[in-house]
Amino acid sequence: MAKLVECVPNFSEGRRPEVIEAIVAEVRKNKEVKLLDVKPDASHNRVVVTFVGEPQAVKQAAFAACAKAAELIDMEKHQGEHPRVGATDVVPFIPVSEVTLEECVELANELGREIADKLNIPVYLYEAAAKTPARKNLPDVRKGQYEGLKQEISQPERRPDYGPAKMHPTAGATVVGARQFLIAYNINLNTSDVTIAKNIANTIREAKGGYRYVRAMGVMLEERNIAQVSINMLDYTGTPLHRVFETVKSEAARYGVNVIGSEIVGLTPLQALLDAAEFYLRFEGFDRKQVLETNLSDD
Amino acid sequence: MAKLVECVPNFSEGRRPEVIEAIVAEVRKNKEVKLLDVKPDASHNRVVVTFVGEPQAVKQAAFAACAKAAELIDMEKHQGEHPRVGATDVVPFIPVSEVTLEECVELANELGREIADKLNIPVYLYEAAAKTPARKNLPDVRKGQYEGLKQEISQPERRPDYGPAKMHPTAGATVVGARQFLIAYNINLNTSDVTIAKNIANTIREAKGGYRYVRAMGVMLEERNIAQVSINMLDYTGTPLHRVFETVKSEAARYGVNVIGSEIVGLTPLQALLDAAEFYLRFEGFDRKQVLETNLSDD
Repeated sequence: MAKLVECVPNFSEGRRPEVIEAIVAEVRKNKEVKLLDVKPDASHNRVVVTFVGEPQAVKQAAFAACAKAAELIDMEKHQGEHPRVGATDVVPFIPVSEVTLEECVELANELGREIADKLNIPVYLYEAAAKTPARKNLPDVRKGQYEGLKQEISQPERRPDYGPAKMHPTAGATVVGARQFLIAYNINLNTSDVTIAKNIANTIREAKGGYRYVRAMGVMLEERNIAQVSINMLDYTGTPLHRVFETVKSEAARYGVNVIGSEIVGLTPLQALLDAAEFYLRFEGFDRKQVLETNLSDD
Repeated sequence: MAKLVECVPNFSEGRRPEVIEAIVAEVRKNKEVKLLDVKPDASHNRVVVTFVGEPQAVKQAAFAACAKAAELIDMEKHQGEHPRVGATDVVPFIPVSEVTLEECVELANELGREIADKLNIPVYLYEAAAKTPARKNLPDVRKGQYEGLKQEISQPERRPDYGPAKMHPTAGATVVGARQFLIAYNINLNTSDVTIAKNIANTIREAKGGYRYVRAMGVMLEERNIAQVSINMLDYTGTPLHRVFETVKSEAARYGVNVIGSEIVGLTPLQALLDAAEFYLRFEGFDRKQVLETNLSDD
């Protein structure tokens, strides 16, 4: 299998279908990337586009879409419920297979430079690509939104990482970064006592001293009358699925409760599941190239 | 991920590199299939070729290679240690992903008819494609080899499934069929007592009343001074890896022995590992399309 990066840019247009389509067309016409999803939201006035491919192809498609958004979206006229600072609001690169997070950081830097140089748009780097801790979290970078940042952009602590310390007159600013793939993962318990799910969630979530990269809460599944530990795995390479699953099983047993099952919501990189198989079957010297399907792309 | 079939034809030439290359070139020039392996054996005077692709493309590549073998190999002059009945000796189709064994049986029939009609070579169907139990096992079909079959082919019980009841003057006969992917799987024990591995092998192998589709034996790994249960999984869709692994673990415990690890030798279809992850993580409603990488082939 080839090197594979996911890119999930958010554009500040969720109402005019022809503008959304023009932006998405820039991705679609790149035959080296695969468009996976387009999710427009009218009340947010925003569209989330998901595509994957080899690193350089993904970067090129992302730039083409950014350029088109800069051409068609005017932030002076933009209104919507979701926080935003620019026509292309945020562009994260996410490693999927055979690619490191560091390579995605480099890709974010390359795209940031290109957006600044060719489109004259100020660019901020966030998450794993952030150059200072103050810019790690997206809400901090986006503070004040388009209107507020326009006033503050020339202040030293708000100067962009690339490009002019001045908002683009229509396209605003863009935030580019890299992060791990987020896996939405739920574990179901054979109890209708949601307190147990909440207690277990507290044992695994980072905020309470549990596993790093884990967010969790206990919720009730009313239709099945069972409690669920609902989890966001922020970095499955740091804290794997099986470790969280086994801990939930063990903590549940303390209440005399069993794990009925678990579910992945949406997509997961293959590696997260191979890691689970490797752990449970106690593989020695396993190489993902032993998976027949991973031998098919490159010649 | 697209429908994927593996084809592993065996040709009766392992000594003349230019003939081997001419046959393999027929596969390589088909851009819709991916050549995975070419294993010539001079003492067997035979070459095993492995390639994968979508069903129809794989069948076309297989036919092209068969036609080339019929052109370049003369069974009247062929000598080698391995049993064989023709220039293209045997052609199995193996489901890898999104394809059933039944579809591979149909593919075997299509190829068999094509070889008979266009090349005038008698074709026998074996394994899952066999029309009678007597032709299920390859050694039975190949009984007497090229020289013996040449004498007996007109007898009612030895007539081919397709084509003339008469050997092709140079290419002989060809055996075509379908079978499941064979996974070579070993489980290592923390004991140097090979008797324990042999006893455990006997509990899981079909021949002794264990699991269907499982062949197993106990062997000693001298270099590590540990015993190993060495297994051939003949159909991982019927008896999955995790079931065999858990049984070996449980049987080993009866001797106070632990499983150190396991290993897959060579390739495995992705599904076999997804099945293990699904079992251990107790997935509810998991669909392999949730694996991001499986969404990439088809547009």
